[in-house]
Amino acid sequence: MFSRTRQGSVSSIGEEALIRRIRLWLGSASPASPAGIGDDCAVLRPARGRELLTIDPLIFGIHFDARVGPRAAGAKLFKRNLSDIAAMGGRPRAAVVALALDDRVSLAWLADFYRGMAHQSRRHAVPIVGGDIARLPGSFAATIALTGEAAGRVLGRTGSRVGDWIYVTGSLGRSLETGHHFLFEPRLAEGAWLARRANVRAMMDVSDGLGKDLAALTPRGSEPALFEAMLPRRDGASAREAICDGEDYELAFSVSGGRARDSLEKAWRRAFPRTRLTCIGRFVRAGKRPPGALNLEEFRGYEHLR
Amino acid sequence: MFSRTRQGSVSSIGEEALIRRIRLWLGSASPASPAGIGDDCAVLRPARGRELLTIDPLIFGIHFDARVGPRAAGAKLFKRNLSDIAAMGGRPRAAVVALALDDRVSLAWLADFYRGMAHQSRRHAVPIVGGDIARLPGSFAATIALTGEAAGRVLGRTGSRVGDWIYVTGSLGRSLETGHHFLFEPRLAEGAWLARRANVRAMMDVSDGLGKDLAALTPRGSEPALFEAMLPRRDGASAREAICDGEDYELAFSVSGGRARDSLEKAWRRAFPRTRLTCIGRFVRAGKRPPGALNLEEFRGYEHLR
Repeated sequence: MFSRTRQGSVSSIGEEALIRRIRLWLGSASPASPAGIGDDCAVLRPARGRELLTIDPLIFGIHFDARVGPRAAGAKLFKRNLSDIAAMGGRPRAAVVALALDDRVSLAWLADFYRGMAHQSRRHAVPIVGGDIARLPGSFAATIALTGEAAGRVLGRTGSRVGDWIYVTGSLGRSLETGHHFLFEPRLAEGAWLARRANVRAMMDVSDGLGKDLAALTPRGSEPALFEAMLPRRDGASAREAICDGEDYELAFSVSGGRARDSLEKAWRRAFPRTRLTCIGRFVRAGKRPPGALNLEEFRGYEHLR
Repeated sequence: MFSRTRQGSVSSIGEEALIRRIRLWLGSASPASPAGIGDDCAVLRPARGRELLTIDPLIFGIHFDARVGPRAAGAKLFKRNLSDIAAMGGRPRAAVVALALDDRVSLAWLADFYRGMAHQSRRHAVPIVGGDIARLPGSFAATIALTGEAAGRVLGRTGSRVGDWIYVTGSLGRSLETGHHFLFEPRLAEGAWLARRANVRAMMDVSDGLGKDLAALTPRGSEPALFEAMLPRRDGASAREAICDGEDYELAFSVSGGRARDSLEKAWRRAFPRTRLTCIGRFVRAGKRPPGALNLEEFRGYEHLR
């Protein structure tokens, strides 16, 4: 990431030239001003329906390290933010990027980091419309703020009830070991589809580990009853890894109890034949966990600051 | 900023407890979910008119240091972003905050940092609706993304013509020495007022130094002819300091040549009797700078990465 020579580093060209380079690297991912880079703010048409807004960083040594290439790192930053829009059933609209970096960062590395973002930007038709550059001695942190819109229902984390089924998309665990943490696909189509189904009650993305994240989906006076055998595990992950590892970027959601479940699963297989969907348990009254259900107290997700 | 004891630091409580504290610190500055903190995205009504979007960080050692108290630092971060909305004549709507920090940061310091943001948030009726927390070993960087709206005209940086007058609000220079860089008031009312006046052609905020920033306002084939005696200087600043220091957070704008200038100045004095407004020169054809006009090539503004 850092250049051994001054010629190869960001410091060799200064901010104005760097902004010109960034425009080149982004290419068609960045429209012309005032809809794009070049003014004090980006100017957008207003959201259709309600507006969604999220912000997520990518920090060297925390969210990626030297084993992850710059294109993959840039893509991960963009996709982390897309996953938050997916988690509410929204459609992403436009992104701004705040870049904070040591001036020894390599220009070639940075070019590929931007190309990784640009690729995701074009793929999802979400233009990069502005940003900021600042120095961060000794480190690298890029932060994206992403706006989205939800024409129909916005599916939040609250709204589940006792008796609801608990579902997750894809597989869980061993995200770092398998490279899933930068290879994942944000579940945008799936999230939007789920938001249109009235019997889906609440939804979120699983990023800090199911064991921790599920607390936000759990209604008061209730607890999740999950069964180890039902957990969709990635690549030989243990139950602990599936529950605790984090960085899954899958959707977890609740479905009203009863037979609604069958029609949902059938419709899902037609809509997303290649995306795994698993019912992993249901919400039960607190203290009424059936025999064999996992005690999530024994598992802890990723705590960012411990 | 860093705590000497583990008990006094962020690491003593972990992320979930920290988020609960942040809600307390923000108080009424942060509405309840889904309009506020607590879901994957914040949910907002769509912008009225066009939407504005900006992102700006505050980094320890770059935008503030130990001489600036935490409340002032938090306020500065919020106001830096407000100033970008002001620069386009917009109205700010809502903010999200990405916090990246070493886990030795003091909880008491952080509480006051959030209180500084909360104060600005309430003052300008711009709720803090969400954010993210991540580790940044050895440092502290907070990034705000701010959305705004412009019901009428959006005043960008382009649109000036040869012959236009060049204006700045307030005074320039010695921002760091005088504390202006955290004491400034974002020119929101002034920016919105200027955007409604048809003879104001282009506008921006002066943050990297007039000498550098003015290039963005200057039409092609033209150059600014500024006169040293006309520069509004802060607190005994030299011409060089007024042109190069940066962190002024004042508005610079162009006004169509001719007599429109007189009525603008008269109306300004009625609308903003306490905000200084100065005509500092005009745009002339490139190479046709009149005698006595400053040669801006001799001045350079702040280059973030040199």
